[in-house]
Amino acid sequence: MSEEEAESMLLELKEKAELMVDLAYSSLLYDSKKLADEVYELEDYIDSLHYELQRLAIDDAKKGELETDEALAIIQLGNSSEMIADAAREIADVELRDVELHPILRDSIMESDEVITRIEVKDNSIMVNKSLGELELAKNTGMWVFVIKRGRKWIYDPDKNEVIKAGDILFAKGPKEGLEHFISLARGEEREL
Amino acid sequence: MSEEEAESMLLELKEKAELMVDLAYSSLLYDSKKLADEVYELEDYIDSLHYELQRLAIDDAKKGELETDEALAIIQLGNSSEMIADAAREIADVELRDVELHPILRDSIMESDEVITRIEVKDNSIMVNKSLGELELAKNTGMWVFVIKRGRKWIYDPDKNEVIKAGDILFAKGPKEGLEHFISLARGEEREL
Repeated sequence: MSEEEAESMLLELKEKAELMVDLAYSSLLYDSKKLADEVYELEDYIDSLHYELQRLAIDDAKKGELETDEALAIIQLGNSSEMIADAAREIADVELRDVELHPILRDSIMESDEVITRIEVKDNSIMVNKSLGELELAKNTGMWVFVIKRGRKWIYDPDKNEVIKAGDILFAKGPKEGLEHFISLARGEEREL
Repeated sequence: MSEEEAESMLLELKEKAELMVDLAYSSLLYDSKKLADEVYELEDYIDSLHYELQRLAIDDAKKGELETDEALAIIQLGNSSEMIADAAREIADVELRDVELHPILRDSIMESDEVITRIEVKDNSIMVNKSLGELELAKNTGMWVFVIKRGRKWIYDPDKNEVIKAGDILFAKGPKEGLEHFISLARGEEREL
């Protein structure tokens, strides 16, 4: 494999696995089967990506482009992302089994230093018609937007070119202390980033 | 169990497991056996916490304080944190096996939207003699400090009362776009939060 190929596969495995955990906890918090289903779909995708990565690592070891230990390290890091993805599925599974979530479960997620929120973007919000790249919300509020729900469309892991529209519902995570500022911006109560 | 007890155990499992992943990737990036060892130590702690949580959930189900499905959901969420902790150990294991890290592995971590950094706090930094709670770095820069190395002392998952000293080495993670501001603050090149 080209080094770039291995690098981008490993990176994608890592990021998708972490996204899955956020989606899974969100599915529980907001009782969303749709988000839980997405975790399952991403898991299938991760499985095939993981399989490809392992094949390529071994092929490269055979060709002498990677040392045995290097190939093993790549496989092991891929495994760890796969394990995190499995953990996310375990969480999503709780949602899909349709168990009424005991308040202590919800609280244990929301009491964390890092919280998850869901908020609608109002017409007069400074976010409207701006891209995530322009807003730099993670830098300016601490909160990362990981899902946008726009009408019936769901946008997972939106990139920096994604432009926010009035009425969008944002799922975001970040430090508890950044929550208020983020929510005020989405609601249009505060206009300064 | 009291509800508070289950809640705080689940929360601690979740947060410690996530901390372990950050520590594990940091151990690889900065070739630190010390951080990798800490991952192993936390894993032992998580194992016993996880065991206690499961016992309590079943005991409470027996007493009729929890529905069977509720007890199962608690156990399952505990499992998912345990799985994430196992994934972290898998990553730390790569560091402990003393394999020379191939540059593509390091790059695949650093190319992520969420990056990890290690930076020394200079004498004239605005951070000096301020607590993490005062600085609100996660809110103001997007970057979370998850380890402070102070001389020979390592402070893991520091709380908001922890006061930063000149010479501290901070390990932090956050959005790539927040990195520059955070580093400038630590170096004293920028004085405004």
